[in-house]
Amino acid sequence: MFESAEIGSKVDKKTYSERVPELRANLLAEQRRLATAPLSVVVLIGGLEGAGKGEVVNLMLEWMDARGIETHAISSATDEERARPSMWRFWRMLPARGHLGVLLGSWYTRPIIDRVFGRSSQTEFDIELDRMLDLERMLAKENMLLIKLWLHIGEKTQGKRLEKLEKDPQQRWRVTKLDWRYFKNYKKFRRVSEHALQRTSIGESPWHVIEAADVRHRNLAAASIVLESLRARLDQIEAEPPSRPEPDLPEPKPVNILRSLDLTHKLDDATADRRLLKYQADVARLSRRLANAERSLVLVFEGPDAAGKGGAIRRVTRAVDARGFQVVPISAPTDEESARPYLWRFWRHIPGHGRVTIFDRSWYGRVLVERVEGFASDEDWRRAYAEINSFEQQLTGFGIIVIKFWLWISPEEQHRRFQDRQATPYKQYKITEDDWRNRKKWDAYEAAACEMIERTSSEASPWVMVEADDKNWARVKVLGTVARTLAKELDR
Amino acid sequence: MFESAEIGSKVDKKTYSERVPELRANLLAEQRRLATAPLSVVVLIGGLEGAGKGEVVNLMLEWMDARGIETHAISSATDEERARPSMWRFWRMLPARGHLGVLLGSWYTRPIIDRVFGRSSQTEFDIELDRMLDLERMLAKENMLLIKLWLHIGEKTQGKRLEKLEKDPQQRWRVTKLDWRYFKNYKKFRRVSEHALQRTSIGESPWHVIEAADVRHRNLAAASIVLESLRARLDQIEAEPPSRPEPDLPEPKPVNILRSLDLTHKLDDATADRRLLKYQADVARLSRRLANAERSLVLVFEGPDAAGKGGAIRRVTRAVDARGFQVVPISAPTDEESARPYLWRFWRHIPGHGRVTIFDRSWYGRVLVERVEGFASDEDWRRAYAEINSFEQQLTGFGIIVIKFWLWISPEEQHRRFQDRQATPYKQYKITEDDWRNRKKWDAYEAAACEMIERTSSEASPWVMVEADDKNWARVKVLGTVARTLAKELDR
Repeated sequence: MFESAEIGSKVDKKTYSERVPELRANLLAEQRRLATAPLSVVVLIGGLEGAGKGEVVNLMLEWMDARGIETHAISSATDEERARPSMWRFWRMLPARGHLGVLLGSWYTRPIIDRVFGRSSQTEFDIELDRMLDLERMLAKENMLLIKLWLHIGEKTQGKRLEKLEKDPQQRWRVTKLDWRYFKNYKKFRRVSEHALQRTSIGESPWHVIEAADVRHRNLAAASIVLESLRARLDQIEAEPPSRPEPDLPEPKPVNILRSLDLTHKLDDATADRRLLKYQADVARLSRRLANAERSLVLVFEGPDAAGKGGAIRRVTRAVDARGFQVVPISAPTDEESARPYLWRFWRHIPGHGRVTIFDRSWYGRVLVERVEGFASDEDWRRAYAEINSFEQQLTGFGIIVIKFWLWISPEEQHRRFQDRQATPYKQYKITEDDWRNRKKWDAYEAAACEMIERTSSEASPWVMVEADDKNWARVKVLGTVARTLAKELDR
Repeated sequence: MFESAEIGSKVDKKTYSERVPELRANLLAEQRRLATAPLSVVVLIGGLEGAGKGEVVNLMLEWMDARGIETHAISSATDEERARPSMWRFWRMLPARGHLGVLLGSWYTRPIIDRVFGRSSQTEFDIELDRMLDLERMLAKENMLLIKLWLHIGEKTQGKRLEKLEKDPQQRWRVTKLDWRYFKNYKKFRRVSEHALQRTSIGESPWHVIEAADVRHRNLAAASIVLESLRARLDQIEAEPPSRPEPDLPEPKPVNILRSLDLTHKLDDATADRRLLKYQADVARLSRRLANAERSLVLVFEGPDAAGKGGAIRRVTRAVDARGFQVVPISAPTDEESARPYLWRFWRHIPGHGRVTIFDRSWYGRVLVERVEGFASDEDWRRAYAEINSFEQQLTGFGIIVIKFWLWISPEEQHRRFQDRQATPYKQYKITEDDWRNRKKWDAYEAAACEMIERTSSEASPWVMVEADDKNWARVKVLGTVARTLAKELDR
């Protein structure tokens, strides 16, 4: 892959000064087009020290309108970032629709270094690369254009550049001992980077290797690639007819996991209170150990209206120190949220060490209500299963304990609860016309839920089925599960 | 202030269980009212260790709807927080309209501890307290209700509580060596806290001292205060007629600072290029020293349309390493921004050590366009001067270098530039109907600018007047000022 970037491409001064004005005008024109398009752009700039990554960023900011371009240099993570899965810091950098972000370095930086110095095996490295592919495919579907540039220089050129930088009093600060150590491993870096680039060059976001020995050639190549990629994607968006999602109203199978639940389970008040008290004591004790264990806890509550999510959540929060938890109710996204890829609004609430986040409804909305109501296109909710699994694997892989509760009631019980809400003055706010309307889609919702449970239950983050016609039973089961899971995870 | 919280108030079990259900129902009702009101609420909970701050937070979350209540325990700052002025971490915690936030500890915590241990003088302490008053007055005006609770216990009670906690294996973790050290200084803490509370009890946000020795009394008192404060403020909002701001169209004085500028200043291209190159080299060299010096740089660009802000900004960014800066264009706020106090959207972009943020228009919009167009009420833009001064003092006090550029052109020059924009295809996007319309308010805008410059120039963050009819002159002046200021600040 790198051979073709070692052929000695050069651009003379005259050609350069002839081509630059047009390139700049075109870049500006495409940036203006981007401003109102349903698209955001991230330019990743990779390559060795001395290849000129910083110069290319400076160039882009100079040739385009720097206003609204966000640049992020990937250096060591802050402590807020280290307390969360490695991709969290990149998610928080994603630009909003109409904007352009430039990453100097990227999610590839650390894995490549780790592999070069043998801190990860080839298999671990490949697994990480494949995860990035998944991420990039998703970003592409979520209307984010990734332009991946790799600035390549040969071993001799790198050596010369580092020496030259060291001699220049104004540039010396840029060359560290680490850079020389990396330089000594040039061949390894080359091999590992080439492997990474080959494995992660896909149609949606191919790598562009740029021969960076000649500065003028490097500049023109980088700017042209950004221009062409941006233009092609914007043309494509204009040509695409705006999609009008159709509601997907599947029929439930006559025998399914939800119908197999025994909704007659009941607990009398005295038994329930006794058990709740015990479990609350367990949860209180165990949740305090999260911080020292550098773990955190994510609870997800899903289920139809009036299934008792709020009540169950209150039984959990009663047990957890208020300093440490956050309940995040998921309803309509804010405009900052809807201007970014779907999972962004959930990533931003992922807790750091020692903390608990409780999602009252969650990322599963996409394969439940958004599918049934036709808010998400067929393609969007179909790919969501894999994206959600990958998201949760990142959480659990980092040591976050994820428990997902599915609270299920019979349509008859829901009807009773709706009527009760309407009859009780202080509960009336909980019931709206929408709720009655949603009941008509009960079957489709049930079928969507069955498919969701089947496709997103994993060993690390299984769905816990909660029979919820009896509130006592449901609350005891929820709290008991939290207590047992914490014990299992923290005692091992 | 504390004597009245040492009178032995107690609530018996029966009274407690009689009063709780009504309190809870009322709290929930007010929280629902809050959800759609133009108001956000922050409950500050202060007091010594062992007074039951955490229990009161737990209580609030249990008695109210925990969904959407954000709780923040003020412990040690993260490194992202330490790299910014001390109030930054509190600004990022401010809840959006309709929401309630609970702070365990607050902006009072650190100053009180510093004073107790003699790390600050009485005068420094009082200055800090007065700043907090300013902040709280502003938050009140920006439709944020602050409910400040102080849980008070006597010395004996604290000693007993700490001992009891230490004996309980499940609570022992909560008592640290530091707590005992604080306990030994009980009398000092009492004196310093009492002083702080007295000085910062104002009409908009008085302190409520709660006798916290008896748990039932403490709970009822805390919940009642929250309920009553919330209800009173919501009633008041309902009673207030919605304000309809009138545009403020002042006449400029015949002799003023803007008219005294010599707009005939000119530089030929060769001289300008030579100076720009020199200053850019200076800025490039100096800006790299910001990180080591633990300083950062904020540049503000204001001035009428077509005054050349964009071009001047580009001359600066060309000199600064792209890794280190961000250009933030200020136009309409996002909904997350408009749901919070005005300055929130600027605070969120304040740079950490070593970084540069360039604001293309800024917080001065409130006293310029918002005043002239009538977007801000008379009262709002009038109080903005003091708020802005306080904001900038916090930045400069922390070591952030703040330079504010006022680019000024004659109306004739603006007219020429507008016509040029309309005639040049790639510049047409820069000019809209609004721009022509705004020209009609030139006089009012000029008068507003004069008042702004007069009221917000300070030694630490002066306005730099830039005669901008000649672009060369303007750009050289901007870059030269940045270079000289950096040299002065970093070499001292």
